[in-house]
Amino acid sequence: MLRTLLLLALLPASVYAQTTQEKVRDYRSANEPQILKEYMALLAIPNVASDTENIRKNAEFIAEMMKQRGLAPRLLEGPTRDTPPAVFGEYKVPGARRTLLLYAHYDGQPTDPKQWTGTHPWKPVYRNAALEAGGQIVSAPAGNEPVNPDWRMYARSASDDKAGVMAILNAFAALKAKGIPLTSNIKFFFEGEEEAGSPHLAEIIKANRELLEADAWIICDGPVHQSGRKQVVFGVRGDVNVDVTVYAAKRPLHSGHYGNWSPNPAMMLARLLASMKDDEGRVTIDGWYSDVEPLGERERRAIADAPQYDEEIKKQLGLSRTEGAGKSLLELINVPSLNINGFASGDVGDLARNVIPTTATAVLDLRLVKGNDHRRQVERLIAHIRKQKYFVTENAPTDVERAQHPLIARVNVRPGGYNAERTRMDLPVSLTVIEAVQSTTRDKIVLLPTSGGSLPLSIVTENLKTVTISVPIANYDNNQHAENENVRLRNLWEGIETFAALMTMGPAQEGARSGR
Amino acid sequence: MLRTLLLLALLPASVYAQTTQEKVRDYRSANEPQILKEYMALLAIPNVASDTENIRKNAEFIAEMMKQRGLAPRLLEGPTRDTPPAVFGEYKVPGARRTLLLYAHYDGQPTDPKQWTGTHPWKPVYRNAALEAGGQIVSAPAGNEPVNPDWRMYARSASDDKAGVMAILNAFAALKAKGIPLTSNIKFFFEGEEEAGSPHLAEIIKANRELLEADAWIICDGPVHQSGRKQVVFGVRGDVNVDVTVYAAKRPLHSGHYGNWSPNPAMMLARLLASMKDDEGRVTIDGWYSDVEPLGERERRAIADAPQYDEEIKKQLGLSRTEGAGKSLLELINVPSLNINGFASGDVGDLARNVIPTTATAVLDLRLVKGNDHRRQVERLIAHIRKQKYFVTENAPTDVERAQHPLIARVNVRPGGYNAERTRMDLPVSLTVIEAVQSTTRDKIVLLPTSGGSLPLSIVTENLKTVTISVPIANYDNNQHAENENVRLRNLWEGIETFAALMTMGPAQEGARSGR
Repeated sequence: MLRTLLLLALLPASVYAQTTQEKVRDYRSANEPQILKEYMALLAIPNVASDTENIRKNAEFIAEMMKQRGLAPRLLEGPTRDTPPAVFGEYKVPGARRTLLLYAHYDGQPTDPKQWTGTHPWKPVYRNAALEAGGQIVSAPAGNEPVNPDWRMYARSASDDKAGVMAILNAFAALKAKGIPLTSNIKFFFEGEEEAGSPHLAEIIKANRELLEADAWIICDGPVHQSGRKQVVFGVRGDVNVDVTVYAAKRPLHSGHYGNWSPNPAMMLARLLASMKDDEGRVTIDGWYSDVEPLGERERRAIADAPQYDEEIKKQLGLSRTEGAGKSLLELINVPSLNINGFASGDVGDLARNVIPTTATAVLDLRLVKGNDHRRQVERLIAHIRKQKYFVTENAPTDVERAQHPLIARVNVRPGGYNAERTRMDLPVSLTVIEAVQSTTRDKIVLLPTSGGSLPLSIVTENLKTVTISVPIANYDNNQHAENENVRLRNLWEGIETFAALMTMGPAQEGARSGR
Repeated sequence: MLRTLLLLALLPASVYAQTTQEKVRDYRSANEPQILKEYMALLAIPNVASDTENIRKNAEFIAEMMKQRGLAPRLLEGPTRDTPPAVFGEYKVPGARRTLLLYAHYDGQPTDPKQWTGTHPWKPVYRNAALEAGGQIVSAPAGNEPVNPDWRMYARSASDDKAGVMAILNAFAALKAKGIPLTSNIKFFFEGEEEAGSPHLAEIIKANRELLEADAWIICDGPVHQSGRKQVVFGVRGDVNVDVTVYAAKRPLHSGHYGNWSPNPAMMLARLLASMKDDEGRVTIDGWYSDVEPLGERERRAIADAPQYDEEIKKQLGLSRTEGAGKSLLELINVPSLNINGFASGDVGDLARNVIPTTATAVLDLRLVKGNDHRRQVERLIAHIRKQKYFVTENAPTDVERAQHPLIARVNVRPGGYNAERTRMDLPVSLTVIEAVQSTTRDKIVLLPTSGGSLPLSIVTENLKTVTISVPIANYDNNQHAENENVRLRNLWEGIETFAALMTMGPAQEGARSGR
């Protein structure tokens, strides 16, 4: 600790960071055409995890990139050849007392090319601004002219999360090229099925425990703050999806001949769902909030210090009301949620008919925070459904069950549920990461106890003696998971500088391995 | 009246009917292959009212059928060439003192072919039993072998309501072929947009008043009683459909980053719909039941005399609970209803994603009884939505409206709503029709003050000096309005006999024109 303070005193952070940052920027600037060409080649490879042939091509492409940067990459295979492999690499620093594992994922969300506007998910192109702001498709400048950093690259995973792969590997390349010494051993880990719920991550970690141990996993995924400020996020919410179907008559009925005598499944499900929340949007399921692990003092302060952006977002979204009885968005993502992803019964629009449908189905999305257990939270949901006098089953009801139970709900928990993860902000490694990211920008960075989004980081900490900290780089309006995904180039360039700062941050603080 | 009694005394109904019925049956039996071939050709023409090209082909096909039976059909056109024409024909009986208009409709409900099981809506095929009872697709017997009358024809409108067209025109053909004299002038009227809510029926009637006057309109539409007994129905419910859409954020949001802060439209709509009914299924909208015109003594007795079939239907439908606090189905169709035809928000199944959808939509079906007015009932619905603090608009909300109103519901009343209609059971023409239908069967026929279903019969009685009486023929388990619609052949054959009896029923009772 003393040594750190001495070093900081001798070499003020701003000067030190400025120097490294400038050198990294010079490298990036000089190599921009090559970096972008390589990036477009990577983005052109379709990367849905279930597309086994293409997903492996992505892994091989990334391994080749690592080789070109002097690393000796390995593909960490899952249980079958169809499992997207993780791409692993390692760079040892003689005498380093800390090991950082830098994580990104190279697979992307499935998408329907027809829903994209003027571009194709796997044919990357530039737009001179966001599509929503009227951005037009434009060609790269001729020769070695720099591309306007406010231009955007449109492609699936342009930001989520091949941007992470690019930022990490180009930061490393820049430091090597400029002869800047790294201060930690660095491990690289690029996952290939994160968007599919990381179904084999636990197996891959268990099979490669020693290889994947580190003082911290630094996760490069997700967007920076809506204000444009960089942020460091110390947790992610857990997530589990549940399908709920309620049953009415066995065959569709004429709504005139049977309506208001034969029960309507859409009304049944509407009543069931309505029973789960109050007027303010608070979940009324017994015990829903009882496991929540309270935030610490530093976490509460970080939320209070974060930019107040709610009114701005409400305006953008056309909302004049939010749920949560006046609580802010940042407060609310620190409590477990219940969201309806979809609801379907019968037909609407031109196909609507005067019938009583046979079933109604909703897909629920339960987000979890530190302290929740995804199995326990689902049990509470099921207990609530039972409390509404429903018989709960995992299958379509039999005739015997129909005869016995006036109300029947089929409840199926989708595979791949996992818990939340949160690292204390006051751990030494947390403080060092905060300092490193802050060193790259004059704006005050935003610190969040948790992201609203989810990653299966609990799989990491349940299987390794490490902690996880997320350092996202993408623009917040990147349309991740949706059509027209994009990255603003400036975010990619700043991401390279951020990761260079992390690879060269001050010496390891004592105690980084203790606590979570 | 005296003359009628004398005639009945001289020519007992059972003997007279038996003779006619047998002759009609002989004709049908001898011509069965041709009748079925013609029917399949008619069913093969797609018949959604909005499919302007095909719907006209149906009309032309039916006109050709009428020509072949010696009639001189006319197409009664609506205001534009896109309006499905009504097909009209007339057969005058010298000396007849009564005119009956026989009504059926040739259009069918829209349907998604993908939802049909093994068959296509406009490729009629036989099954050797109901699909739900394991019926298999089978070929017609070779040569002139009769088809098993318990087989079913699967196609859109096989029962609703091309069966009506077939029963009427083949009854007429049978009587002509067998030289049996008709006792009334007969008018034929086949409508082409009933399932679209008869939006131009009033115009067509007004433009052809003299042509369409009759002592009674006999409506061939809908199913016989669930017990299999024939029935005569003296009323229909009114009907109006309403689309309700509620609005959340303007773009789909990541459910983790924004869930439980940004409102979920499916939950909003679930809560709104849940507010419309109580635990027993009673509509809680203010004034919903206050206009209902009470039933007369004869109508109440008819309901009490009708077979008690509720437990049997519940068993068939797999229901162990019905709405209405223990009231019977027949009682409940005499009060106004509110049904959800469809509910959609986001996606379910494989396409479900962790998003907050932007909107949720439900299509509501309001059934009306005598005394209700469809405009007034919709006003009550809208007043209820306002009472739940919604701003109600007919359009997608503007940014200004979004800023002003926390809760926004778009409410669109579908065109074509109409009121209920009910003819008194004790009118002379009512009594004669009852007698004619009863003459074709040994089972006691069922008499109902109203059907649960709807037809725009109020349009008829508001524009003509006539009454309406429904004589349905289809099997009750015909899946009308849904996928896998079918007719059991026995019902079609018995329908021909029923309509032959109506065309040859006893002389007009005095006073048929009086009262409604």
